Amino acid sequence: MEEIDLLISARWVIPVAPEPLVHEHYAVAVRGRRIVDILPASEATRRYHAEEHVNLPRHALIPGLVNAHTHAAMTLMRGLADDLPLMTWLQQHIWPAEARWVGADFVRDGTRLAIAEMLRGGTTCFNDMYFFPEITARVAVNLGMRASIGMIVVDFPSAWARNADEYIARGLDEVMDAHKGEGLISTCFAPHAPYTVSDAPLERIRNLSNELERPVHIHVHETQQEIDDHLTHHGVRPLARLDALGLLGPNLVAVHMTQLSDHEIALLAERGASVVHCPQSNLKLASGFAPVAHLIEAGVNVALGTDGAASNNDLDLWDEMRTAALLAKGVAGRADALPAHAALRMATLSGARALGLDEEIGSIEVGKAADLVAVDLGRLETQPIYDPVSHLVYAAGREAVSHVWIAGQSKLVERELTQLNVDELAESAASWAMRIGSSDRAED
Amino acid sequence: MEEIDLLISARWVIPVAPEPLVHEHYAVAVRGRRIVDILPASEATRRYHAEEHVNLPRHALIPGLVNAHTHAAMTLMRGLADDLPLMTWLQQHIWPAEARWVGADFVRDGTRLAIAEMLRGGTTCFNDMYFFPEITARVAVNLGMRASIGMIVVDFPSAWARNADEYIARGLDEVMDAHKGEGLISTCFAPHAPYTVSDAPLERIRNLSNELERPVHIHVHETQQEIDDHLTHHGVRPLARLDALGLLGPNLVAVHMTQLSDHEIALLAERGASVVHCPQSNLKLASGFAPVAHLIEAGVNVALGTDGAASNNDLDLWDEMRTAALLAKGVAGRADALPAHAALRMATLSGARALGLDEEIGSIEVGKAADLVAVDLGRLETQPIYDPVSHLVYAAGREAVSHVWIAGQSKLVERELTQLNVDELAESAASWAMRIGSSDRAED
Repeated sequence: MEEIDLLISARWVIPVAPEPLVHEHYAVAVRGRRIVDILPASEATRRYHAEEHVNLPRHALIPGLVNAHTHAAMTLMRGLADDLPLMTWLQQHIWPAEARWVGADFVRDGTRLAIAEMLRGGTTCFNDMYFFPEITARVAVNLGMRASIGMIVVDFPSAWARNADEYIARGLDEVMDAHKGEGLISTCFAPHAPYTVSDAPLERIRNLSNELERPVHIHVHETQQEIDDHLTHHGVRPLARLDALGLLGPNLVAVHMTQLSDHEIALLAERGASVVHCPQSNLKLASGFAPVAHLIEAGVNVALGTDGAASNNDLDLWDEMRTAALLAKGVAGRADALPAHAALRMATLSGARALGLDEEIGSIEVGKAADLVAVDLGRLETQPIYDPVSHLVYAAGREAVSHVWIAGQSKLVERELTQLNVDELAESAASWAMRIGSSDRAED
Repeated sequence: MEEIDLLISARWVIPVAPEPLVHEHYAVAVRGRRIVDILPASEATRRYHAEEHVNLPRHALIPGLVNAHTHAAMTLMRGLADDLPLMTWLQQHIWPAEARWVGADFVRDGTRLAIAEMLRGGTTCFNDMYFFPEITARVAVNLGMRASIGMIVVDFPSAWARNADEYIARGLDEVMDAHKGEGLISTCFAPHAPYTVSDAPLERIRNLSNELERPVHIHVHETQQEIDDHLTHHGVRPLARLDALGLLGPNLVAVHMTQLSDHEIALLAERGASVVHCPQSNLKLASGFAPVAHLIEAGVNVALGTDGAASNNDLDLWDEMRTAALLAKGVAGRADALPAHAALRMATLSGARALGLDEEIGSIEVGKAADLVAVDLGRLETQPIYDPVSHLVYAAGREAVSHVWIAGQSKLVERELTQLNVDELAESAASWAMRIGSSDRAED
């Protein structure tokens, strides 16, 4: 008998890669942080002696979900303002609230709430873009959450930095260098958008990104208005400007992309860039419909993001996966567009690939980190069962997530968080909402 | 002190009508089947002595949701086949399975599973269209579920009837007449679609509908293909044919309506017809995008339906409400289209109105039936709270539904069904899936 730390036996193991398979009555063996074996459950108990054996007879075990675009701390503004045109929402609600309230405390408390919500929903890695990223990183490390931390850059000053140079300097120093060797934290550059970052910092980011082999996480082509304005100010569409600046390559993680010509789709594929699709945010802000089926057919890596809870209004990657699978069919006009397996891959391995983490996470494969999620398919809402992958995408919700592990560490057991106190988080959020809400009403 | 049967005090009471209000720290008093008072919680405890007092300090109390279009028994085919073009899905999977398996037992077991799922998701009334409707009605009565039972009519024979005349005769006899005076059951005519029902039965249904004052529940303009085929066979679009046959009036409950000209929208409004929007079904089958914001602006009553679980794949009106609110914005290109209050109204009062039940249900008003749903907004996923209606639509899921009452009778308490055994339902569904799945694979 070989000694291992953890053996998880499940009714179904759905590895996502190397093949879109469903293994029945399988087990995953974990030693330390890593997956060491994937085998039939009956063999596993003969071969391994595990310190802990978790038996999940009604569950599907899948790779942890990867939220490839969010602004975690904005959970504290969840539902602050809705159903408003984008600029009214930003100018009269979100920006004033941010100017007044965003600081280290806000980011710490908001990120804790966000991580709790993500863990309860089966998300084991998030790609963040927000002010005070060093705080986001610290909270993630303390909670054992995997995160790709964006080194945010904008031209305008904020509570965190005065200008693009300072944003870049603080990012490199307090985010990237400070977390070197910390296995759960990776970093990327996060210039906000082509319309908020000028050429000089974008060029610097391009050089640094190439030199340090880091992704560049940026909002691009979110709305038609953005493109129209950019044409006015720069004479070209935003993607063309990024291309001219040498940023359109395998490191680019382009978020939203609701407006794309066939030529632009071909160019994204040719250059190996990734797109992060945020369907619920795009719908809620009436930004447009990303051509997801076309992007995937062209060979573009398409990941999935929730966007921040201020615009979405949750960090529910489960619901986002279902919306993506449904909306892709509607937009393509083809019921066979983005089938269930492809939607699950989008929410896992494609996210990992966008973040440069696909050798570490995104699938259940020997050698990868044990970022695993168990989904209880025995609930009434998923009866009967013909195909567990169909149920994961089209019938289950995040409430079916029962267990979560990150790098082999248990984060959720029978829906209970192992490290966070839900009541404390709710109290902290309520206290923030009291202050933010009253200043928001004073703005009206 | 006045004697009442039930007093429900809640942090928020959201009546939907007569005004889109949110009452804080309010109570609803129930005597027998009906709401007798709506008042501040502190006054309520002074004025009423209640046999049962339910105190819901973190909850929103709302009217029960109305699922205005479903095929309840099809829950037994949930996830049987997905991601296929409509005709492949129907011809190679759904129709063969129905031909082989649909009978009284199938409808009984499928409807029980469906009602359990609906109750756990806050749906207190469903409008059904399926074979063996007398069985659906009987199951609903036995479980105390409110239902509008469609007297199905199609030209082709099924296990239930040989021809349109027999469908109509059995419907009138076994559904309508058999349930006269049964408060929870209402009935409607349910000719399947313009392409499956010929002129003669449609004319008979028009006469009967006028005479008996019953709605006519029918699939119309689900896809462009349906319209093209109808033009070939009838020389006019389906809605024009229904109009020529005298069916386009206040009794019409037109389901799907993804393809509509401005003229047709104006006509629907002028004639007072209702539309049932099924956004997730329309997306999943790539049927098209209903112009929901235009319909509502034109004054058309737009209700909400899940469609059957074989196509959706659930009976989750909560997720459907969120999808409707999000998709309406995307389709209209306006972030202020279908705001949260309007989405909640669509899922409650507008459904009641479509079914001719708006004097009985759909809002929390004195004199209406006590069909009530409590939603726990104290969960982590809905923190913090700025606006409870925003959270109901954009952040909560059906798992937040804690209590359900229909006509004053308790159906769900702290998420436990009062009359149904979840394990028995799961076993029954598994046994059906074993049989249906093996015959489906044999078809392949």
